[in-house]
Amino acid sequence: MIHLLYKSSYVFVVFYYVIIPLGYLTKWWVSVEKMKGNSTILVTGGAGYVGSHTVVELLKNNYTVIAIDNNVNCYATGKDKPESLKRVEKITGESVTYYNVDIRDKEALDKVFKLHKIDSVIHFAALKAVGESVQIPLTYYQNNVGGSSTLFEVMAKNGVKKLVFSSSATVYGTPQFLPITEKHPTGQGCTNPYGKTKYFVEEILKDVCTSDSDWKVVLLRYFNPVGAHESGLIGEDPSGIPNNLMPYISQVAVGRREKLQVFGSDYPTVDGTGVRDYIHISDLAIGHLKALERMLQPHYTSWKAYNLGTGRGYSVLEMVKAFSEVSGRQIKYELVERREGDIAACYADASLARAELNWTATRDIKAMCRDTWNWQKKNPKGFQTS
Amino acid sequence: MIHLLYKSSYVFVVFYYVIIPLGYLTKWWVSVEKMKGNSTILVTGGAGYVGSHTVVELLKNNYTVIAIDNNVNCYATGKDKPESLKRVEKITGESVTYYNVDIRDKEALDKVFKLHKIDSVIHFAALKAVGESVQIPLTYYQNNVGGSSTLFEVMAKNGVKKLVFSSSATVYGTPQFLPITEKHPTGQGCTNPYGKTKYFVEEILKDVCTSDSDWKVVLLRYFNPVGAHESGLIGEDPSGIPNNLMPYISQVAVGRREKLQVFGSDYPTVDGTGVRDYIHISDLAIGHLKALERMLQPHYTSWKAYNLGTGRGYSVLEMVKAFSEVSGRQIKYELVERREGDIAACYADASLARAELNWTATRDIKAMCRDTWNWQKKNPKGFQTS
Repeated sequence: MIHLLYKSSYVFVVFYYVIIPLGYLTKWWVSVEKMKGNSTILVTGGAGYVGSHTVVELLKNNYTVIAIDNNVNCYATGKDKPESLKRVEKITGESVTYYNVDIRDKEALDKVFKLHKIDSVIHFAALKAVGESVQIPLTYYQNNVGGSSTLFEVMAKNGVKKLVFSSSATVYGTPQFLPITEKHPTGQGCTNPYGKTKYFVEEILKDVCTSDSDWKVVLLRYFNPVGAHESGLIGEDPSGIPNNLMPYISQVAVGRREKLQVFGSDYPTVDGTGVRDYIHISDLAIGHLKALERMLQPHYTSWKAYNLGTGRGYSVLEMVKAFSEVSGRQIKYELVERREGDIAACYADASLARAELNWTATRDIKAMCRDTWNWQKKNPKGFQTS
Repeated sequence: MIHLLYKSSYVFVVFYYVIIPLGYLTKWWVSVEKMKGNSTILVTGGAGYVGSHTVVELLKNNYTVIAIDNNVNCYATGKDKPESLKRVEKITGESVTYYNVDIRDKEALDKVFKLHKIDSVIHFAALKAVGESVQIPLTYYQNNVGGSSTLFEVMAKNGVKKLVFSSSATVYGTPQFLPITEKHPTGQGCTNPYGKTKYFVEEILKDVCTSDSDWKVVLLRYFNPVGAHESGLIGEDPSGIPNNLMPYISQVAVGRREKLQVFGSDYPTVDGTGVRDYIHISDLAIGHLKALERMLQPHYTSWKAYNLGTGRGYSVLEMVKAFSEVSGRQIKYELVERREGDIAACYADASLARAELNWTATRDIKAMCRDTWNWQKKNPKGFQTS
């Protein structure tokens, strides 16, 4: 009798702790593999910096990609396929279906959803210059918030309710603690309209998920994307004076700008200059694939936010030094006053993405500098070079 | 010599402390009077509850009114002038220019600005049902946020940069202290999309003011508007089951609903039921005129927020009792469970509006109940009665 009881509880244990979980895992694995092979991903802002690198990773993983862009911030001849996407095709040997569509244009968006059986959307399309957003806030709100809400409406109408949203660590405002976890408050102390548009769209998506349990949303909060694809064929191509550190450094290195201004050298950091969490663009791009896979996991519902960063910060001078070493060029810089609104340090706690997305940044600061420099050398004037 | 010195400093004092301030005051008074006589105010959502009562006060004060509405939440035959505005004309003996325009329609809005020399805008147009906003958030964001930003864009394009915005005490979220002053944090703990849309629009307006110093904006944060015009010709006309207490009470009194459900009777308040700051709709309407005048004061720039409330709260049962006394009807009610997201008490510190807008609520709870009851009796089915 005791023997039998022992045996039956053994069966029970095996069943509940092995067979059932294995079943779930298999189901999930099959669905992920199935999606990889077949599914069609609409990428808004697909011609942009993060967009184009993500399209590369999607194509490499057998996704079908439909890219849309309004060509406002990318190099293209009129409404033709932007140069960045042509380069993506060169890198991958795959073709990218492209439409010149503005996400504020409901009818044009709807047509794209009618033409293709779209499974999920990765939504990058947005204006992104912090300084400009202070000057023309309405344009930012209409593009980033109005455009997003139009996109979500068209998605819902077409029964597409899976979305990865390109958010930003700016939603955290001035950090209340470091490293920043996803539990850090958002929306408080967002000092510029750009950051507020990201926060507003996150809030809208949370409300959309509350209203309709069919929605699955992943909010990816980027830290500081830098670098370029290792091929040197695509990279960051800012119009005008770069807002971000890395393109600025590399333009100084290539002789396009005279010197770098370092804003603030009396911060309580390793060398007094501001510390940020830089992340290689290819790592970031892969994060989006992991987010897509996460959305397909059994029981994934509603929304969840993930930091995409390396988890460690580098100072401006550390970046300058690393870039100098990699490029063999001297980077001229001068230390100037702090810039209003800037903070001393900001870096991610990236452990949630590691645990739940099975994602971690693998490319170090050397790779970031090397790939930026490779892109810059090959394309001293960005995409316009070709 | 001493006598001369004494005399000249006397002249100085008179000049600096009497003549110059008098000059400013005169300039301001003239501009206010001039505006009253001539200026044309565009009222968006002019056919709504707060809109129509404000139009009455504007006409009484010799403003020219252009009202627009999309007729979604008011009684009208198709796109014709809504019944509420016809009643406004009856009350005032003045005519109201009306256009059936949705604030999301940029071209239609622009036409209105081209047809009339508009001086300032009072912006009411918005969806306002809290419960509905949870169900269809995108519709709320597109109407309230998207529509507002389209309106502001068309205003700027036409050089009209004076705006009074119909905001709400919901931007304060759950009160951190009572009474609520304008310095209370906003946007934190706004639990529903409706409240968030009001908060988002406030933030957009702040950014617009930062980007362009020509803008003058007043944000009016309403507490709980109740009552009706003393004529009984216009009042609140909710479609379907009322969301707010007063229309519900009056529909019970008139026999249209069986009984009132009182959500929560164990709050730490005078009698355990929720306490709110009710304000008579005509007092609220006058607040908008005072806001217009404030915008014309010398040196008024950028934006400022004002609470419009009485500064004292009444409990649900106090309101029921007052309404019962005024109407002579028994109001059947039952005490039920608290409703999720409701708070115990919320009332305004209204001293800033008193000091700077020269405005204070003058109508008491008796007037609120009397005028609601008068409107309800004369229009048991709202505007549809006629």
